Amino acid sequence: MIIVLKSKATEADAQEILSVIKDAGLKPLYMPGVERIVLGALGDERILANLPINAYSCVESVKPILTSYKQVSREMQSHDSQVQFGDKMIGGGSFCVIAGPCAIENEEQILASAAIVKRHGGMGLRGGAYKPRSSPYSFQGLEEEGLKLMQQASQEYGIPCVTEIIDASLVDKVGEYIDAFQVGARNMQNFRLLKAVGQTQKPIILKRGMSATIEEVLLAAEYIFNEGNQNIVICERGIRTFENATRNTLDLNAVAYIKMKSHLPVIVDPSHGTGIRELVTPMAKAAVACGADGIIVEVHNNPQVALSDGMQSLDEQDFEKMMKGLMPFIKAAGKVLA
Amino acid sequence: MIIVLKSKATEADAQEILSVIKDAGLKPLYMPGVERIVLGALGDERILANLPINAYSCVESVKPILTSYKQVSREMQSHDSQVQFGDKMIGGGSFCVIAGPCAIENEEQILASAAIVKRHGGMGLRGGAYKPRSSPYSFQGLEEEGLKLMQQASQEYGIPCVTEIIDASLVDKVGEYIDAFQVGARNMQNFRLLKAVGQTQKPIILKRGMSATIEEVLLAAEYIFNEGNQNIVICERGIRTFENATRNTLDLNAVAYIKMKSHLPVIVDPSHGTGIRELVTPMAKAAVACGADGIIVEVHNNPQVALSDGMQSLDEQDFEKMMKGLMPFIKAAGKVLA
Amino acid sequence: MIIVLKSKATEADAQEILSVIKDAGLKPLYMPGVERIVLGALGDERILANLPINAYSCVESVKPILTSYKQVSREMQSHDSQVQFGDKMIGGGSFCVIAGPCAIENEEQILASAAIVKRHGGMGLRGGAYKPRSSPYSFQGLEEEGLKLMQQASQEYGIPCVTEIIDASLVDKVGEYIDAFQVGARNMQNFRLLKAVGQTQKPIILKRGMSATIEEVLLAAEYIFNEGNQNIVICERGIRTFENATRNTLDLNAVAYIKMKSHLPVIVDPSHGTGIRELVTPMAKAAVACGADGIIVEVHNNPQVALSDGMQSLDEQDFEKMMKGLMPFIKAAGKVLA
Amino acid sequence: MIIVLKSKATEADAQEILSVIKDAGLKPLYMPGVERIVLGALGDERILANLPINAYSCVESVKPILTSYKQVSREMQSHDSQVQFGDKMIGGGSFCVIAGPCAIENEEQILASAAIVKRHGGMGLRGGAYKPRSSPYSFQGLEEEGLKLMQQASQEYGIPCVTEIIDASLVDKVGEYIDAFQVGARNMQNFRLLKAVGQTQKPIILKRGMSATIEEVLLAAEYIFNEGNQNIVICERGIRTFENATRNTLDLNAVAYIKMKSHLPVIVDPSHGTGIRELVTPMAKAAVACGADGIIVEVHNNPQVALSDGMQSLDEQDFEKMMKGLMPFIKAAGKVLA
Repeated sequence: MIIVLKSKATEADAQEILSVIKDAGLKPLYMPGVERIVLGALGDERILANLPINAYSCVESVKPILTSYKQVSREMQSHDSQVQFGDKMIGGGSFCVIAGPCAIENEEQILASAAIVKRHGGMGLRGGAYKPRSSPYSFQGLEEEGLKLMQQASQEYGIPCVTEIIDASLVDKVGEYIDAFQVGARNMQNFRLLKAVGQTQKPIILKRGMSATIEEVLLAAEYIFNEGNQNIVICERGIRTFENATRNTLDLNAVAYIKMKSHLPVIVDPSHGTGIRELVTPMAKAAVACGADGIIVEVHNNPQVALSDGMQSLDEQDFEKMMKGLMPFIKAAGKVLA
Repeated sequence: MIIVLKSKATEADAQEILSVIKDAGLKPLYMPGVERIVLGALGDERILANLPINAYSCVESVKPILTSYKQVSREMQSHDSQVQFGDKMIGGGSFCVIAGPCAIENEEQILASAAIVKRHGGMGLRGGAYKPRSSPYSFQGLEEEGLKLMQQASQEYGIPCVTEIIDASLVDKVGEYIDAFQVGARNMQNFRLLKAVGQTQKPIILKRGMSATIEEVLLAAEYIFNEGNQNIVICERGIRTFENATRNTLDLNAVAYIKMKSHLPVIVDPSHGTGIRELVTPMAKAAVACGADGIIVEVHNNPQVALSDGMQSLDEQDFEKMMKGLMPFIKAAGKVLA
Repeated sequence: MIIVLKSKATEADAQEILSVIKDAGLKPLYMPGVERIVLGALGDERILANLPINAYSCVESVKPILTSYKQVSREMQSHDSQVQFGDKMIGGGSFCVIAGPCAIENEEQILASAAIVKRHGGMGLRGGAYKPRSSPYSFQGLEEEGLKLMQQASQEYGIPCVTEIIDASLVDKVGEYIDAFQVGARNMQNFRLLKAVGQTQKPIILKRGMSATIEEVLLAAEYIFNEGNQNIVICERGIRTFENATRNTLDLNAVAYIKMKSHLPVIVDPSHGTGIRELVTPMAKAAVACGADGIIVEVHNNPQVALSDGMQSLDEQDFEKMMKGLMPFIKAAGKVLA
Repeated sequence: MIIVLKSKATEADAQEILSVIKDAGLKPLYMPGVERIVLGALGDERILANLPINAYSCVESVKPILTSYKQVSREMQSHDSQVQFGDKMIGGGSFCVIAGPCAIENEEQILASAAIVKRHGGMGLRGGAYKPRSSPYSFQGLEEEGLKLMQQASQEYGIPCVTEIIDASLVDKVGEYIDAFQVGARNMQNFRLLKAVGQTQKPIILKRGMSATIEEVLLAAEYIFNEGNQNIVICERGIRTFENATRNTLDLNAVAYIKMKSHLPVIVDPSHGTGIRELVTPMAKAAVACGADGIIVEVHNNPQVALSDGMQSLDEQDFEKMMKGLMPFIKAAGKVLA
């Protein structure tokens, strides 16, 4: 519920109403604006329906939030959010490119990959240290050793880094080494993990689950936001469908839809979204065009020997070509490269 | 199977081999090039495997076509096909916009809609006279009366028109009035219909079925091509998935994939692909960016009273805005508006 | 809309109301019962809403039909329909097994297959003469020659036969040879075909489309019913999903759901529904258990050399074993083998 | 890789080969049989390919395991596994019914529900204490208080209980109160959690993810098995598809397929698998018929006021009727109620 106070309402008025909200067992929100104070009340719909907020003379209007997600919705905040990653911003008027290998494999590989990313205009480095793999017999990542290598590469090339976090118990350890957490598709509804990263202030790249509806990914973001961390970037990475010519079906409808319904930045993963190297660049361009705020893409210094996802990884030449190819579309979208 | 003849091979050599192919019960193809003659042989894989083509001294190389579709594949023809629609071309270096109402409702509506399409740069007019509707109680279209109105609008505004053909028995009648046939998603595997339109020379806009794989839509195109009609345009219009925030899931991966594997032009239907007016323009831009050769979009002079698909139809203002919004992306793609 | 007349209402009363319905441009239905007359009115919802039926003193109650399908719904008819196929009934207290090869290949094959079906308790023979194949280069069926062989096998073994009808123009010809039409999954929304078979009185086995919703298959049945043919059997044959260990995902939920919502008989195709021979029998048993009225299953005298669907076809031994295995479940369901 | 030793091979021979396997960095398995010793070697395929096992004279045959899952496959163990739950067995010749409310709400509710389950032949009690809910504003479960109530109900009625475990950090605490862990659909690829429950010896009911392939659920089971816990029961609970008449699409194909490929018991959740009370019993019967080893079903003493999943919960009368209805099918399947 959004409660707009009259322009003459004081902070004391606001506090009184916030107390009423809190006493009813609801979550109160205080959102002071330039012209007037806006309050929010979140929680059980039945309690909300019976809250006598309209009776207060300082209240101008009360509006229910029709979507199931609240704090991440455009109804709650009409302007675009921006999320700081390193010293740059994701969202707003810029388009970001985060790139790097699927998995951190060794020092040489992550350093070489980071160099490629930096050299051709990437704004952030990605790479997995804890890999969620379908089979217990597949390479599971270098774990803490990988985090150290990631931090080294990030510092050496002066680009912030993001890695996947696969369990709530790892938040502190992983947080020591990296600048942002990625919550992977398989963990999109690992609510303990969502709450744990919600209690940090690091940027969260929240990947949509393989069969998660748009509403569900926004509710997952709401879990994080509700814990106090507003630095959330939604990532569309393809959904599961009957089509198997491509690894997943990249759902760019979802990007345009989320941009309409939520104030959060949205990025696209054309590598997992297609699974085919040749399709990464066209779909990266499509991501720009449909309104995405950036992409996250797999780049490897030597894809032929990659321990995972080699088929969809770009090498230096591919990456350079993609970056050049994106520029006219970023300009057409009225944006600049972050 | 693709058979490349030596540069010194004569047409008589070619004819001899074509006879061998034909006598084996296979379909022979004759594709003379500037430098050398290329032949094709299509049909039962087991017969192909035993054809002693390599034994002929005029043969330079023999290559199997690995995909199940043959004549529409890039293996058979590496350059892009173009399809003439009215006096313009679909495919090649241009981007076409075909627009109009879901259904032809009456004279005023189709004329007003055609005017909007023409005024803002559309290259073709769409509109349904025979409507395949899920319910027998829904409006089924004006049928022949609709075709006449369509023809009138097309002529009055000087833009070619396309309408859906729903049964092989209607090919002659519908063909009298319109410039191109659309084979709808529900009929993508109506093989009698595919063969019937394949026996005309009119352009065919072949829509991908709601749950058709990319391979299946290319095989459907192969049915048409195999009858002798090469004027085929594939249309991605969204597939069925678990997501229901949008009417369908527009699969732009498929566009980039088909452009890689086939020489046929590909267009996108962002109206059915999203079902939501606000998403039509962003997805039209994404279509340009991922390499599509055009879009087909629903425009209605008065969407509020449309007999079908009102929610996804653009009015004049929306359409004008979309056309202006597309221009920078068409330029970024190195194309011009058809 | 269902209109229940008072018990004292006369046929003249009924005729008066039917006239009102007809004059309003709606379809009137006359359904005399033992105790009272029930009428129906079908068509445009807006006209229905304004029809002053309640004003007639002979009317006891008026009830809208909430589902989009009307005549095939249980709201319109609460008892189970039965469909006569040969001299037996599909639906009611019996469980039918229709079996035979995917495609009719030659005389020996169809006769041998029919013998197997008859010998082990099948009630009907299936087999394709016109095959809808994804590729134009695949075997397309023996066409009329196949129909003749089918009729011969059917007569020789005294079991009725069903074959797929792929185009409205073939209804008369195919109807000469066979006892029932199958509308295949790819043609479930070929509305011309639905209307054409709806104008016959032959039993129709209507297969659910690969991505058709339950509502859509019932609306397809409504098309047939609305033309006057009430002899409709719905067939669940598997839908397209992300899972590819099996050829399709057999949706038995749909069987139980359709039995709840519609009075039509429902059968199951465990051959196409699984694509794997070993799964045919367990899923046939599951079909009995969830309330299906029968199965249609692929049986071939020599699956190793079948021209299509060999992997999912049962040979004589498999079929015999399945039939024996089904019997306890048919009994558990309180039914008998048809 | 499965290594069958000659009948005269000694345990010392076996140990020698196990050492070779271990030294190569692979996981050795020792499976002594009545007639001969069988060994296994698991791990990196490339290392396996180069292991010179055939050279040992005590080795009779070496066979690769073709599926990606190994220890849970029928190739590794041809007979059915059984899992002890309380003092009864899941799998083998019995059919188990585990029932209870979606969420534990209060003492009265869980005791009354447990009474219903026990009274009508349920073998186990289910109920959620930690609820993974899409929205942060939905009821999240009573947590430890719920576990205590669950334990109380379980002991009072003498039936073992199972509850969902949503995070690896909760394994110890939850394990104090309950007899079996359920890994929910959303956590099927929470690999930390799989490993954590794999380090206990409690029975694990592993639910298939909403968009998990059959291969993926068997690989998830492999994670648990590989940690040393062989007490795994796979649960099919419906997958996400385009169909939305039902909450999910219950994939009984998967049950028959998993029974063919794996030795693990498989149960079915017809409550989540349909989402519709009226469909629970028919699909429970279908589960018996296709070879499932049991069902897990939602029962609530008062579904109208249930805090979650009321629409799909059975009340006492429904549950009693279902249990009676199942009996003939359990008998038809040659099983007895566990």
